[in-house]
Amino acid sequence: MEVFTQWESEIRGYSRTYPTVFASASNARQVDESGKSYIDFFAGAGVLNFGHNNPRMKRAMIDFLEADGVAHSLDMATTTKRDFITAFVETVLQPRDMTMKLQFMGPTGTNAVEAALKLARRVTGRRDVVAFSHGFHGMTLGSLALTANDAFRRAAGVPLENVVRLPFETAPGGGLKALEDYRAALSDVSSGHLPPAAFVVEVIQAEGGVNVATAEWLHAVQQLAHDYGALFVIDEIQVGCGRTGSYFSFDGMGLDPDIVCLAKGIGGYGTPLAMNLVKPEHDAHWKPGEHTGTFRGQGLSFVAGREALTYFHDDELMTQVRTKGERIASVLKSVADETDRGFDVRGRGMIWGLDVGDGAIAKAATATCFDNGMLIGPCGSGGRVLKLIPPLTIPDDDLEEGLQILTEAVRGTTRRTV
Amino acid sequence: MEVFTQWESEIRGYSRTYPTVFASASNARQVDESGKSYIDFFAGAGVLNFGHNNPRMKRAMIDFLEADGVAHSLDMATTTKRDFITAFVETVLQPRDMTMKLQFMGPTGTNAVEAALKLARRVTGRRDVVAFSHGFHGMTLGSLALTANDAFRRAAGVPLENVVRLPFETAPGGGLKALEDYRAALSDVSSGHLPPAAFVVEVIQAEGGVNVATAEWLHAVQQLAHDYGALFVIDEIQVGCGRTGSYFSFDGMGLDPDIVCLAKGIGGYGTPLAMNLVKPEHDAHWKPGEHTGTFRGQGLSFVAGREALTYFHDDELMTQVRTKGERIASVLKSVADETDRGFDVRGRGMIWGLDVGDGAIAKAATATCFDNGMLIGPCGSGGRVLKLIPPLTIPDDDLEEGLQILTEAVRGTTRRTV
Amino acid sequence: MEVFTQWESEIRGYSRTYPTVFASASNARQVDESGKSYIDFFAGAGVLNFGHNNPRMKRAMIDFLEADGVAHSLDMATTTKRDFITAFVETVLQPRDMTMKLQFMGPTGTNAVEAALKLARRVTGRRDVVAFSHGFHGMTLGSLALTANDAFRRAAGVPLENVVRLPFETAPGGGLKALEDYRAALSDVSSGHLPPAAFVVEVIQAEGGVNVATAEWLHAVQQLAHDYGALFVIDEIQVGCGRTGSYFSFDGMGLDPDIVCLAKGIGGYGTPLAMNLVKPEHDAHWKPGEHTGTFRGQGLSFVAGREALTYFHDDELMTQVRTKGERIASVLKSVADETDRGFDVRGRGMIWGLDVGDGAIAKAATATCFDNGMLIGPCGSGGRVLKLIPPLTIPDDDLEEGLQILTEAVRGTTRRTV
Amino acid sequence: MEVFTQWESEIRGYSRTYPTVFASASNARQVDESGKSYIDFFAGAGVLNFGHNNPRMKRAMIDFLEADGVAHSLDMATTTKRDFITAFVETVLQPRDMTMKLQFMGPTGTNAVEAALKLARRVTGRRDVVAFSHGFHGMTLGSLALTANDAFRRAAGVPLENVVRLPFETAPGGGLKALEDYRAALSDVSSGHLPPAAFVVEVIQAEGGVNVATAEWLHAVQQLAHDYGALFVIDEIQVGCGRTGSYFSFDGMGLDPDIVCLAKGIGGYGTPLAMNLVKPEHDAHWKPGEHTGTFRGQGLSFVAGREALTYFHDDELMTQVRTKGERIASVLKSVADETDRGFDVRGRGMIWGLDVGDGAIAKAATATCFDNGMLIGPCGSGGRVLKLIPPLTIPDDDLEEGLQILTEAVRGTTRRTV
Repeated sequence: MEVFTQWESEIRGYSRTYPTVFASASNARQVDESGKSYIDFFAGAGVLNFGHNNPRMKRAMIDFLEADGVAHSLDMATTTKRDFITAFVETVLQPRDMTMKLQFMGPTGTNAVEAALKLARRVTGRRDVVAFSHGFHGMTLGSLALTANDAFRRAAGVPLENVVRLPFETAPGGGLKALEDYRAALSDVSSGHLPPAAFVVEVIQAEGGVNVATAEWLHAVQQLAHDYGALFVIDEIQVGCGRTGSYFSFDGMGLDPDIVCLAKGIGGYGTPLAMNLVKPEHDAHWKPGEHTGTFRGQGLSFVAGREALTYFHDDELMTQVRTKGERIASVLKSVADETDRGFDVRGRGMIWGLDVGDGAIAKAATATCFDNGMLIGPCGSGGRVLKLIPPLTIPDDDLEEGLQILTEAVRGTTRRTV
Repeated sequence: MEVFTQWESEIRGYSRTYPTVFASASNARQVDESGKSYIDFFAGAGVLNFGHNNPRMKRAMIDFLEADGVAHSLDMATTTKRDFITAFVETVLQPRDMTMKLQFMGPTGTNAVEAALKLARRVTGRRDVVAFSHGFHGMTLGSLALTANDAFRRAAGVPLENVVRLPFETAPGGGLKALEDYRAALSDVSSGHLPPAAFVVEVIQAEGGVNVATAEWLHAVQQLAHDYGALFVIDEIQVGCGRTGSYFSFDGMGLDPDIVCLAKGIGGYGTPLAMNLVKPEHDAHWKPGEHTGTFRGQGLSFVAGREALTYFHDDELMTQVRTKGERIASVLKSVADETDRGFDVRGRGMIWGLDVGDGAIAKAATATCFDNGMLIGPCGSGGRVLKLIPPLTIPDDDLEEGLQILTEAVRGTTRRTV
Repeated sequence: MEVFTQWESEIRGYSRTYPTVFASASNARQVDESGKSYIDFFAGAGVLNFGHNNPRMKRAMIDFLEADGVAHSLDMATTTKRDFITAFVETVLQPRDMTMKLQFMGPTGTNAVEAALKLARRVTGRRDVVAFSHGFHGMTLGSLALTANDAFRRAAGVPLENVVRLPFETAPGGGLKALEDYRAALSDVSSGHLPPAAFVVEVIQAEGGVNVATAEWLHAVQQLAHDYGALFVIDEIQVGCGRTGSYFSFDGMGLDPDIVCLAKGIGGYGTPLAMNLVKPEHDAHWKPGEHTGTFRGQGLSFVAGREALTYFHDDELMTQVRTKGERIASVLKSVADETDRGFDVRGRGMIWGLDVGDGAIAKAATATCFDNGMLIGPCGSGGRVLKLIPPLTIPDDDLEEGLQILTEAVRGTTRRTV
Repeated sequence: MEVFTQWESEIRGYSRTYPTVFASASNARQVDESGKSYIDFFAGAGVLNFGHNNPRMKRAMIDFLEADGVAHSLDMATTTKRDFITAFVETVLQPRDMTMKLQFMGPTGTNAVEAALKLARRVTGRRDVVAFSHGFHGMTLGSLALTANDAFRRAAGVPLENVVRLPFETAPGGGLKALEDYRAALSDVSSGHLPPAAFVVEVIQAEGGVNVATAEWLHAVQQLAHDYGALFVIDEIQVGCGRTGSYFSFDGMGLDPDIVCLAKGIGGYGTPLAMNLVKPEHDAHWKPGEHTGTFRGQGLSFVAGREALTYFHDDELMTQVRTKGERIASVLKSVADETDRGFDVRGRGMIWGLDVGDGAIAKAATATCFDNGMLIGPCGSGGRVLKLIPPLTIPDDDLEEGLQILTEAVRGTTRRTV
């Protein structure tokens, strides 16, 4: 580790939480250079839906490399990119009768959100964007203005403007009442509020603590947006691409978003890719080249991402996600029921949070898990929620072993902190 | 192309400039699906310093994939990342007696600049940052505030604040006088100016029109920064990593920047990577995890990037760069001398601009080059500068052929627009 | 009127509402140059609490002029200013055991609010200030940011920042619940809210539609402010100086504001004066001369304002205010009860609003009143509230006649708009 | 003084500079309560052009009070206001063939500037306004953004945005070159500058240190504004109304401003009044009542202000101003010539500055003057300029005596600080 402590910036974080040097990885396992194996319930912060070093993708990427496919292309047309687009359209859009345009930008989630904000402001001619408490949307100045976490915001060093903050459905003061109050404010010329350019919402707030919105509330947000001429933007970056048991986290809800932001899992192998889905009538407001990015056209990401889409040709993986998800939920509920500390269990598909109500407990449990060969990360306010987002492809044995490690870690921590 | 016109966002740009579908690439050549080969004088907007699909890197990446190296690691410690860091330290930092810390973030240049801005504001407790006319620093809201180009700025849809704009050395009103005037303003409590957090400057403005700063002027900027407690930040994203004939564009100038922003070429293969070099005394102001990013830890980029560093173990490539650069300059000067239109030739190493004074001429020449099997891109105000940034590894034959195509395209265009 | 239409700006407003040229005024009467007399229920937008051309003040002002008192003094010490300060301290502060400092600034309400904002931000080191829907605090950029009315805000031409907007107690979504929700947000590090510098509130929103806050709600605002280290600022500009039946509108509520902004009525004769009361521990943060203003020291205003304070040496006027106020309320309630349109009657002391629910009705009634010799002004969202703020000194006959004119105007308008 | 130290805010300034209690005033004399008389070279910061308690105005004001003229009228039409408007039009506008509209607002200079900014932004649809180093335009958030002085700006507690700062003609880096550089930036789409809404300039910067612009430079500013569709706004608040030897400080220069901001002297007696002159084509953009103010219609100010206009019916006073101004300049130049410290003498008409290069010297001289019966105030960066702005009506004896006191004070101070 000395190379890291000596030469890497003090900002490094996960290498402090997981203080070892990893050498290889495969599906739901990471192995450090001493040979110790760790079950990965973190999956690269929700990137590795299809496991570390997915063999089908690996094969395709090696083939692509050997064939001298165009690895870097800005936003030029390439055969690889065309294959990805075609696969995405056929696998995701057409079965849902979605006719949205695909926009590629710098390959990180924050770039996707920044592009969505620019377009929403362009389309509406308005400045303010509604974001929700506990939301996480990125680290660059535009997306950071939407992100709710104080510690991240204070790091900006400048005022983060042009955002109206509403409570998320599950936050104190949240729910339909808060939306109705805001609607009343928008309809009142002396409220001090002007109609916003967009509402940007996560269906499940992953970084924010695995807070799950209901379809009813999301519809109310969408309705409010559309009644006031604002765009309804779903930030699907962490919970899209199959995480919740269907491709989109909002599948089956009958929602009709104007923009959907995708990143993380879409590149398949942990290879960077970001993409917005944009309704054509909004997309038409872009002028060519207005929002650029050097790494928009990543051949390896297109190849791996296309391979990832094959998981959605049938319902096999999604069925597994739902089954494994139920198992995770069941174990977590047992853990929660063992104490009278009011632990809360929240989630859907294969994203689950165990809210232990106290960041110190979650941190201690995380450390114990690490010692016992498992990677897990806290999230939510003060880091008080243990977030379980293993690869969707995790073998049952690893799943059970991981759950066992976690259960014992929480029990032990709880016991010690009585 | 129909897939692109039907499904890809209207924002697509290069696929309009180069209206074909590329299928493969190798060193300085891209080949489209009809088999037509193009000499690449654009190199992915300055990313592909070591050519498309560099064979040494390709080999290393395939080995890495086959060995199940950790492809995606956030900022966990991995053996691959350690190898990259060690190689960078030994190859770049130690020979220069630089002791800077390496900070990784979201793998795009704009993320690097955003991180630099946060840190400069944190360190100084100030808000405003000095940026220069014609500068390009990225597309997200923080870095976009530094970018000078109006079209990009207008797309923001919100005010871009906290920036003080000075003319670049070569812009009207630029030079030492402008810096002295600004110094006078900073020393006058009734000037309306407060000391800034940082000066962010490119040694050669690549997007801005291949505008080359002198060492003298850069020293004056640095001195001004340090006299007023501001950080001196060099945005080395497009012209670093060997482009100018040495690793850094500011090598040999005796400069002492507080932060150096790197991206583009550092990942070697066009694989995304961004990294800031930060003086330890500034880096100490970061708290762990304050500026995160899902794709901070890209195994493939570390592998390719490490391989790229081997080009700097000796002076062979850099010598070639200087030699080829002289050839490019010589040809461009001939072209310029053929007309009395006041064409200007600017550059260093293997980044050269032919300023034809008129975006329409440059656009026409670009189109002719494309038809004749060559990729080149305009830059600068109104797109009036033809920018030549071929891979540093371009074979002499391709270089000559490319220069020939360009020469004829410019001649033809000039003749037609008499 | 031709001089006005030809030479005065198109922005003129009241000369359109009351299209005549006034020649003289006395107590609750204004007389135009044709000799027609109007009963004044508007009192210069709440300035003329003691009537037009109050004879006691007039006498004192003439004496002052004849004695060559210092008419204009910036913030130099003068005997006249000392007399005013002494009278204010003895009449207002000491009976209430208030030990606040008196700060004079540019003589308009907006200057008072701007000074309060500067100080609250200085004391707390924070930027955001909480203001309420339907609030009115002025027209300059700092106070305008607090003002809620859209039409006024849009005129700014720049973003109005650094304000958090909460619903006023009586607005949709208002009440204690909204304060509790905001408290929850402030106590949550991932809410996206930082503690504010101040809460600025009117006890009765006069321009906003005669919206009356309860003591309970105001205490909750104060408590919230103090729990989070923010200043509790009462904007007392329109309803202070006796308007509500005691000197301050918050008298008897047990509140303990950090800053009280006064203007309008404090100068007595309609002569400009503004003054903040500031707790000494906050006031100590000012440096000499940090917030200046040419007309801070108005001899005539001090003279008339001191005379106005004599009305508070006993309870005679305030008793009348309460008696007349009951009469006004009683008449308005009768008017409201005559229809089934849901007219609402709100107010306290001698500020009352008849909310007719529709700006067009209020406008028509205002016009009829004018024709019949009475001046009244609409306020609230869309101008739907008829606001009654006659001089506190209005003779009973004028009061009755005015109420009669208004009653008939509303009846007539209501009838016509069935 | 105890009343002031005990009860008045710590922000008080002039009562510290002139630590006595003034009891009466007449023309160029203020007398304190001990009977000591002071010659006033400060004139209420440039308000009292026609002396303290001007007898003609006093007579008119008493008559107005006794006749129950409308003292407070918001922006209703009154006979008194009509008389003022008519007099202003006939005396000032028509002789100059100016057809501007008169806009009244809150009666302070800062309100006038705020209104001008709103209108310029409305007319142009732009945000940024150009202001100059050393400029002073007021204390409320909009005008404060234009004010250059750091101490005033820091008191804002929030970022002061939407302003582009250029050096004033006489500041380091100022002059025509700076305007040309800015013009070049505006004509370059990659300069990072957008065209501004307005240029706001003082012909003589009074607070800024008596910095005098030339007609040539002002024409260049105006030309630049008009070439780029921006409004040319002259802030005439301190040096208008006869101060420079003609009504406007820009008389005779052939300038054609879009808006002229007036305040201070226009109310004649130190009674508050502010007024913008606005070209009708711009004024037409206002909607009725968009920028209001309680004290827009001040009867006493209209009466005194109208009387003040009679001084411009012939050239007598202005001739005196020029003559006295020459005398002042001549004395100051002698004082300056006595030392080799590089004292600078600047001014025009009856505003003159003696720049002693050091705030401590100016402060000491001010204190000596006060002790010897004379009021004078420092201005400029660090308070290093002694500003002489006595009433235009100062008797020759008082002028000579005052100059004598000043001369000796400067001599004494200079001697002591050798």
